[in-house]
Amino acid sequence: MKVVLIGSGSVATHLGLALQAKGVIISQVYSRNIKNAETLSEKLNTSFITDISDIYKDADIYFYALTDNAFKSILRKIEMPEGIQVHTAGCIPMGEFEGFTTKFGVLYPLQTFSKDKQVDFSQIPICIEASDLEVQKKLLEIGNLLSNKTYIINSEQRKKIHLAAVFACNFTNYMYDVASKILEDSGFLFEIIQPLIAETAEKIKTMNPYEAQTGPAVRMDKKTISKHLSMLNKRPDLKKIYKILTKNIYIRHKKQ
Amino acid sequence: MKVVLIGSGSVATHLGLALQAKGVIISQVYSRNIKNAETLSEKLNTSFITDISDIYKDADIYFYALTDNAFKSILRKIEMPEGIQVHTAGCIPMGEFEGFTTKFGVLYPLQTFSKDKQVDFSQIPICIEASDLEVQKKLLEIGNLLSNKTYIINSEQRKKIHLAAVFACNFTNYMYDVASKILEDSGFLFEIIQPLIAETAEKIKTMNPYEAQTGPAVRMDKKTISKHLSMLNKRPDLKKIYKILTKNIYIRHKKQ
Repeated sequence: MKVVLIGSGSVATHLGLALQAKGVIISQVYSRNIKNAETLSEKLNTSFITDISDIYKDADIYFYALTDNAFKSILRKIEMPEGIQVHTAGCIPMGEFEGFTTKFGVLYPLQTFSKDKQVDFSQIPICIEASDLEVQKKLLEIGNLLSNKTYIINSEQRKKIHLAAVFACNFTNYMYDVASKILEDSGFLFEIIQPLIAETAEKIKTMNPYEAQTGPAVRMDKKTISKHLSMLNKRPDLKKIYKILTKNIYIRHKKQ
Repeated sequence: MKVVLIGSGSVATHLGLALQAKGVIISQVYSRNIKNAETLSEKLNTSFITDISDIYKDADIYFYALTDNAFKSILRKIEMPEGIQVHTAGCIPMGEFEGFTTKFGVLYPLQTFSKDKQVDFSQIPICIEASDLEVQKKLLEIGNLLSNKTYIINSEQRKKIHLAAVFACNFTNYMYDVASKILEDSGFLFEIIQPLIAETAEKIKTMNPYEAQTGPAVRMDKKTISKHLSMLNKRPDLKKIYKILTKNIYIRHKKQ
């Protein structure tokens, strides 16, 4: 199986590496940014292009790992090759390919990727959607090659999973970032809080997050909350976040 | 060493179990709530009281694992025994004991506790503060008995660590809760997102959270953000949270 990667971000990088590790041939990498194109092509030991009109026409699958904007812009420019066209995005409907080609689909790996952080692809849920059963069979084959957890998910469902992922991953990571900053400003290493972060993530493997909730908001500890708020006087943005999250936790647990 | 536990919440429960596992005698448990007092005394196979005037006078250490309000209320009522008085709270200054007794301190385990979830105490950072060196020596002894990570931390520092913990744990868990609700409403099991949560927590063991940030906010993917916002039209509270966190992530990464 021959694959072309369109995009050179962290999803393209990890997908490329994972496919290659399973014997798939990555024949070409495209990025409009020459440095990124070069870096990824070196990692995958393959060729790269920065002009989409130079794309190889003979690949079996073309993977688009792009932001929403970049994806739409490429669709307008590319002369669609014959193979299966597949994007990897959580929030782009599969239907975007319609009118450009007939064999298309989505392979969305539900994970957070950073270029320099290795991931175990076998544990990543892979959400698949396809224009027809033949494409679906092909994508399931690739999904099962990469991972133990492959799901057939339509665009509407995938969008919801993606929204949930933003809360569970991107916003969560920002909470870590805020905590890290507070510790750093007080002369502590982030390290001191890592067992707490690990246990918070570990807990919800056996309890649901509703039951796992702890802290001043859920126990209505108004004195602690007001001390925390006054510590955030110099950071009105964080104070606002603290207030709204505390209120939401309080209401969520009061209701039931 | 003989210990009395004042409080019957999750911190009292886990501290009691951990101390007992290390051979410390828990001679008595106090809670104003008879059911909680009974439950914990059964777990620890010890006696319980619901009237603070019945407290044993011969313990070496009295641990107060209470909310801020309950702590202050007990201080006003209790006839202070002779032993060392120690609270376990992140956000209560040690000085609150002043005027009530002369030997006192704080032993704050930096972790999230839920009654029915086991924890490995040996991995929990323990923050200690003491009224004098003799008490400090005693608390360090207990800290080292329970954990491999014991720190001497004053009240001002502990308050900051506690604030960081609210972001890194309590608010993070709420993000999991929101994600779980979004998935549930769409007919998915929370399970599908657990590898993502695990990896998000795992990542920051080797990267700092600033570098680890991913998602539409950090890559300025306005189209995805606006799709997500319109999905939250029926939950204006979550929409507000989504907006403010996205804005903060955007500003944080634009600046540098």
